[in-house]
Parts: sequence; structure tokens; C-alpha cells
Amino acid sequence: MDRRTFLSAAGIAAVGAASACSQGGEQAGEQPAAPAVNRGRTRRLRMVTTWPPGFPGLGTAAERTARLITEMSGGALEVEVYGAGEIVGAFEVFDAVSNGVADMYHAADYYWQGRSPAYNFFCAVPMGMTAYEIMAWVEFAGGQELWNELSHPFNIQPFQAGNSGHQMGGWFKREINTLEDFRGLRMRIPGLGGEVIRQLGGAAVALSGGEIYQALQSGAIDATEWVGPWNDLAFGFYREAPFYYGPGFHEPGSALAMGMNLGVWESLPADQKAIVKSACHAANNQSLAEFNYQNGLALNTLTGEHGVQLRAFSDEIWLEVGRIAEQVVADTANADPISRRVYESYINARRLIRDWANVSEAPYYRQRDRVLGR
Amino acid sequence: MDRRTFLSAAGIAAVGAASACSQGGEQAGEQPAAPAVNRGRTRRLRMVTTWPPGFPGLGTAAERTARLITEMSGGALEVEVYGAGEIVGAFEVFDAVSNGVADMYHAADYYWQGRSPAYNFFCAVPMGMTAYEIMAWVEFAGGQELWNELSHPFNIQPFQAGNSGHQMGGWFKREINTLEDFRGLRMRIPGLGGEVIRQLGGAAVALSGGEIYQALQSGAIDATEWVGPWNDLAFGFYREAPFYYGPGFHEPGSALAMGMNLGVWESLPADQKAIVKSACHAANNQSLAEFNYQNGLALNTLTGEHGVQLRAFSDEIWLEVGRIAEQVVADTANADPISRRVYESYINARRLIRDWANVSEAPYYRQRDRVLGR
Repeated sequence: MDRRTFLSAAGIAAVGAASACSQGGEQAGEQPAAPAVNRGRTRRLRMVTTWPPGFPGLGTAAERTARLITEMSGGALEVEVYGAGEIVGAFEVFDAVSNGVADMYHAADYYWQGRSPAYNFFCAVPMGMTAYEIMAWVEFAGGQELWNELSHPFNIQPFQAGNSGHQMGGWFKREINTLEDFRGLRMRIPGLGGEVIRQLGGAAVALSGGEIYQALQSGAIDATEWVGPWNDLAFGFYREAPFYYGPGFHEPGSALAMGMNLGVWESLPADQKAIVKSACHAANNQSLAEFNYQNGLALNTLTGEHGVQLRAFSDEIWLEVGRIAEQVVADTANADPISRRVYESYINARRLIRDWANVSEAPYYRQRDRVLGR
Repeated sequence: MDRRTFLSAAGIAAVGAASACSQGGEQAGEQPAAPAVNRGRTRRLRMVTTWPPGFPGLGTAAERTARLITEMSGGALEVEVYGAGEIVGAFEVFDAVSNGVADMYHAADYYWQGRSPAYNFFCAVPMGMTAYEIMAWVEFAGGQELWNELSHPFNIQPFQAGNSGHQMGGWFKREINTLEDFRGLRMRIPGLGGEVIRQLGGAAVALSGGEIYQALQSGAIDATEWVGPWNDLAFGFYREAPFYYGPGFHEPGSALAMGMNLGVWESLPADQKAIVKSACHAANNQSLAEFNYQNGLALNTLTGEHGVQLRAFSDEIWLEVGRIAEQVVADTANADPISRRVYESYINARRLIRDWANVSEAPYYRQRDRVLGR
């Protein structure tokens, strides 16, 4: 009986328990070198995700996290991954884990900005940190502690578990040459980036991934952002909107999150806690590496085989977009006390880590291009 | 009896076995969900490193890798870390693991360029890939397969297990304004970067970390590179050489390696293999994040408290350094067949991933600086 059959037979309502422990193998036993909890048993953990089943890149990061936990625990933990809609809908995974309907989610935490705008900072904000920088903030500059403080009241233990790297500015039917070109533009772009587009005089439209292509084709929207070349190529947006703008201003390094039910997390023995946490960190490492490679490959295909025209926003556009974005992000700090503290921690870390980038990678990219040519 | 006492009493010669298995705990048992090998026992693994005991940053990455393996295995694997000179000297760790005197090493693999110049590519080469890029190449663009092919004949299974991020150009007693200023310059700089300095008319001096400060102070050398602000601050080079040049051209993202004795690796059951590999990837993720944060902090201290003057090499210097560096790196491909294949794989991956960086992070850094100011 495969997983889907099991689900279909058992029904959604039966999946209410936080986790299922079942006796596994022929012989149970203790392993003296580690706590005895759950030894010799297979504990099944259900991971619900905001990604369609089998979704490349973002879904890959979820599946990698799950697989690493299962492999490293020798099957003592068995993580089953469910795509959006298989147990609960994409945007219901937070509540499902909070309530114990599922054990863990894999998502982009800015989806929970309705709970608190502070959640934006644990994924991406306009003009914010790159993938490198957000990793440094969360892991070493106080980010994780604030994330715990934000999420524990929701009964969730979060960890970084993937990063898409830099995201592109989007696909446009017409060239964007001046700030005027944003007026009246109907663009699919969510969250704080969407608020920037609204303040530029455009209309920010909310559409799920599967709805975008049709909306571009019908003319319901004039432009869309999605992720980067790897994911964008798969959706074929280039056929409807030939101008591909990069870099984007709105998601300079989107962290993905694994959120585990806090009771489940606390019930794990020390070795399994270490396995879950390191699986997230290893998946973060691998997923960022995979995005950077696959984006390179896909960009090559887009420009070489499909004649996609790369464009960059002008310096004038960047200055105004950046000014608005900084204000939009600063405004989130007024929502609640935790948002203010997260905002201040984030901005301080960005300054510190950016000072380092400015004497290292940033000028290195420029000089290497001068030497090698572009 | 602590570890050092044990070593001292047992003597170096007694440490010849590849690994020690000892019955641990009061009660042995099987864990049905995983292979039964080594279950219920504590298997001690000795990790020898090229870093001084307790060395920040690079040594931290070694200790993190070891700790994660120990924690995740619930103590079934217990990794003991030895600094340079504790069992074998820094540059003897490769042979020690190859011969089974130790189980694993943590090092920068370019130290083994004497075995094959191909080893340079698995750490850093001048004008080469950044940390992000080398992660993408090794994990997803064929690098790991070539690294295995290079290292298996030496009886070693390598994995990436840390990255220092970008390294600085170094500390100079006098400003470097033109190419002429390299003539006669005595600089501590190892490997391929040293060859570039030689071709510019300077003298590349080989000194271990502990010898550098004294050489600067006595005037035996005029300049030195080391790592980046975090490590450089600790050594106090700013007191002897006030001009701090960045970015460097020679190590744009140095990967650190965990190399395990191949027989030990193959003896591990599947779950412990997964634990070792993921511990390396998690340590890679964490160590890069830590370097980026700590470098930001230390840079702030160097410029704010110690009056260090940051300098950048001129565009003219970069063009000539880059031209020489590309040739020095290309020349390594002539050494042996594996070096040629590694070189070609590396250069192809650099081109592909750089094309992506050039529409994403590189221009984003520039525009964000225009918006936020430097």
C-alpha cells in the first residue's frame, strides 16, 4: 500500500495525531550509548509543505530535509512528505503543525506575515540580506533566538532548511525604462515587494504559481515575478513575457524554513534533535548550492535556446525602489513589539555583514569580470 | 584520564590502528530499523587536523564536524579532534589518514598539491570560484565525483566540511599603488597565489601561521596574507603592517575538507555514512555563516578601534594579476591527466555559475550600496 493509497483509505480526519509510533523490525532493543526513548521503533513524522508535490527546488529542499532525517536516524524517524493539498492546503501548514495535525512543515516563513510581520525577516525582505547574510544573522547574530521567541507561542520550533539564493526581478511584457512604466502595471508579486509596486503606482496581484501562466497569456497581468531561472524556465513564462529583469529588489536570498511541532521537538532524544537540526542545515547548504548551479544552467538555456532578453532596472529605478522598500520594511516594525526587535536585529546585522561583503565578494565579482570579461 | 594523558601514556606508536571499537554502556542491543554493525558500541574515530589546537574559524569547523557526528550518532561514533602536532604534524595528516594511523583529517586540500595540483581546485585557486560557487560545483556540477576519483587511490573519502568565505589580500607595510611596488616585495603567501607574486617580481615566502608575526616585526617580510579579519585580528598583524588590502585575488572562497580513511568509510553502516556526510555539509553551512558574521565584527574592530586603513588593489593591478593568475592556474592542467579534467570541469562550472552571479548577487550588491550608502 503506497503512501497515497494509505491516505486515501485512512481519510484526512484520521490523521489528527501529532505522530505515529509503531513497533518496527523483528527485535526491539536498547542502544546504551544514547537515550532509550524510541529506540528500536520507527516513529513516523508527517511533513506538510507549501509546495506542489515534487516541485523542483523548493520542494526538493523539503524532500532532502526529510530524507536526511530518515537516513541519519537509520529509519528510527521516518519522515513522509506531503505536497500542498495532500493533507492540508499550502497556507494551512502552519496551523496544521501548530495544532499537531502534522509534525512539521517546510515553507517560506513570510507566508505567516499575517501572524506577525516579523516573519518576513526569516525569509526575505526587499533590499534585505542575501542568502549568505541571512544565514550569518540567523545562525550567529541572534536571529535564531528571536525566531524561537516568535514561533514558540505558536507551538513551533523553526530552523533554516533551504535557500533559493537570489531571486529575479521578473518577466515583463514591455520594457521598464523609467519609474513611469510602473504606473498601471499589473504585476503578480506578493508581500512587501508587492507593497513597493503599489507605491510606485502599479497593481500587485496575488496569484498562486499554477495560475500565473494563464493570467499572463490572457493579459490579466502584464508582469510576474516567480523565483529564478531554474523554476521560471519550467513554467515557460518566456513565451508570454520576453523581458527578463534581474536582479530583483524584493527577495535577495529567500530562506526556507522547517517548522516542527514544539511538543514533537521536545519529545525527541538528544541524538534525534541533533539529527533534525543538522538535516536542516545540511539541506540548507545543499539546496543553495543546487539553486546556484541549476540557475546557471537554466539561464544558459533561456538566453541561448529561447532568445530571452535579459534586462536590468536602471539606476534611477533602483534608487526610488530602494527608498520605498526601506520605508516599507521599516514600517513593519510598528506592528508589534517582536517585529520591532526583529527589525532592529536584522538591520544591525545587515550593516555589519554588508561592511564585510563590501571589501570582499562584492568588489571581487567586479574585478573578476574585468579580468575574465562578461 | 583525559585525552592528552591517554595519548601521552599510550604513546604515538600505539595509535596505529585505524579505529578503536570498545564496548560501551552496560547493555548491548540491536536496533532493528538499521544495520546491526557497531550498534550498542562506541566506535572512537580520531580526527587529525592541520590547525593548531582550538584554532578559531578553521579549527572551529573541524570541531563542529566532529561534534555533530558524535551527537547525531548518539555517541555510537565518538570523534576525537587532535590539533596539529598532537598525533602527527599539520602536513602529515593526509598520510596519517591514508595509512590508517588516524581515521579522518580536517584540512585545506590545497596542502596536498604535491600529490597532484588538482587538489588546489578543491580548496581555492587565484581568480577562482567564491564559496557559493565552489559549493555548487562540488555538490552538483561533477566536482565531488572528480574529487573521489582523485582521492580514492590515496585511500581517502573527501567531503566539503567548512568554508572560510572570501580571504583578504593581506597586510602590507607600504602601500601598493602600481605593479612596480610588487618588485622585490617579500610576502608570506603560499601556493598558486605565491607563484603569481613571484611572476610579478616579488618573493613568495612560506611561513606557518605562528611564524608570521615575528617575521613582520623583524622586517624579514614586508607583507603577509593570512585569512580574513576574524583570524587576522587575533594575530595582531595590524600593529606591524598598517595597510590592509581587500579583496584578495588568491583565495576567493576556500573550501575546507574532511577526508576519511576509505576503509573506515566503507565499514560504516548506511545511517552512519549519512551522518558523517551530513555533518560535513551542516558544518560547511555553519562555518561559512560564522566566518561572514565574525569577519564583519572583526572588520569593525580593526577599522574602528585599531585605526586600520583599508586599501584596494588598483584596476591596473587587478588586470595584470588576473592575467598571470589565469595562466598559473591553467598551467596546473599540464601536470597530470586528472588535473586536466579537474581544471576543465572547474572552468566550465565557473563560467556557468558566474553568468548567474552576474545577473543576481553581483549587481544586487552594487545597487544596494547605491541605495543604502557605503
